[in-house]
Amino acid sequence: MDTLTRLEQTIAARKGTDPAASYVAQLHHRGVPVMARKLGEEAVEAAVAALSGSREELVGEAADVLFHLMVLLSGKDIGLAEVLAELDRREGMSGLDEKAARGAD
Amino acid sequence: MDTLTRLEQTIAARKGTDPAASYVAQLHHRGVPVMARKLGEEAVEAAVAALSGSREELVGEAADVLFHLMVLLSGKDIGLAEVLAELDRREGMSGLDEKAARGAD
Amino acid sequence: MDTLTRLEQTIAARKGTDPAASYVAQLHHRGVPVMARKLGEEAVEAAVAALSGSREELVGEAADVLFHLMVLLSGKDIGLAEVLAELDRREGMSGLDEKAARGAD
Amino acid sequence: MDTLTRLEQTIAARKGTDPAASYVAQLHHRGVPVMARKLGEEAVEAAVAALSGSREELVGEAADVLFHLMVLLSGKDIGLAEVLAELDRREGMSGLDEKAARGAD
Repeated sequence: MDTLTRLEQTIAARKGTDPAASYVAQLHHRGVPVMARKLGEEAVEAAVAALSGSREELVGEAADVLFHLMVLLSGKDIGLAEVLAELDRREGMSGLDEKAARGAD
Repeated sequence: MDTLTRLEQTIAARKGTDPAASYVAQLHHRGVPVMARKLGEEAVEAAVAALSGSREELVGEAADVLFHLMVLLSGKDIGLAEVLAELDRREGMSGLDEKAARGAD
Repeated sequence: MDTLTRLEQTIAARKGTDPAASYVAQLHHRGVPVMARKLGEEAVEAAVAALSGSREELVGEAADVLFHLMVLLSGKDIGLAEVLAELDRREGMSGLDEKAARGAD
Repeated sequence: MDTLTRLEQTIAARKGTDPAASYVAQLHHRGVPVMARKLGEEAVEAAVAALSGSREELVGEAADVLFHLMVLLSGKDIGLAEVLAELDRREGMSGLDEKAARGAD
């Protein structure tokens, strides 16, 4: 099984466990605002690492972004498959570059 | 092939193409600071969508986060496999909950 | 009158005007989630400018952060004076360095 | 003297002192990337507080944004006066709503 699917299952298994023993359970206990905050903060850390950190720091921060994105999706009962399907849909419809066409900034 | 692997290959194929015709090429042309900024901004949008948007908005913003994370990794010549290996390593070493042990906030 | 006080008054005067003619009115019309998103995005831009932009870019992004912070406070009916009083209170109580004492990261 | 001017002077006075005793000195010792990261993170926290926190939380987070913006400016040797002058310039030139004219999002 691939890493993100396994991560999704682990998060699902831990979300109702003891917050004192599991970081995932702690985030679920604290609620969606804390999950949303963590995602934003980790993305800021990844951005800063990309500009001034080592390669290893960016790998670690990128892993943090993925992890907290998965936790937030779990907190909102959205499966990773839905997000991947959206990425597939965009590529199918108009290429990855759909944003270019609408003048993205 | 899974979605993220295919996305990674598409990004790699487009990074050197014409910035006027490809959003990926445009981001690569503008450089890592713009890629880093986009990741941070999309994560903010995902956080806000989780707190005040619809389910569909969050799915779309989560896709944007994944897409721009992949572009940033590409801009720094880091493969998705390295980031997934880091997630595997954390789970293998100490569970997903390693952060709980070090009193994360 | 100082700049931020005057800015606060201008924002207050425009918040109920025509969204088509005023950016402030447009933000108020779109609501607090958009204001919150803009603050987060502008802070990401300021962070990136500090690390890879010119001095002039950072001055401009810092002005954007202040402007959108003021708009968000206005959207939540919080006066700048309350925020400044909080900064004064922290300095009076324990110095600016209160965070050091509680081991901030 | 007003709060932000006094804060600017306090930050300037502490930036070269012992990092173990002062949070400001600690941030200066750790460098601009940490300052930039802190600004981004505090803005994310303010955005989340505006959407799901209490009024008091937003006041506190807004104070954190102002504080860390001032520290970042100090780390880049930019005076608050320059940023305020930029806000004045925008208002003088075209109103606060200059962004509306260029179709900001």
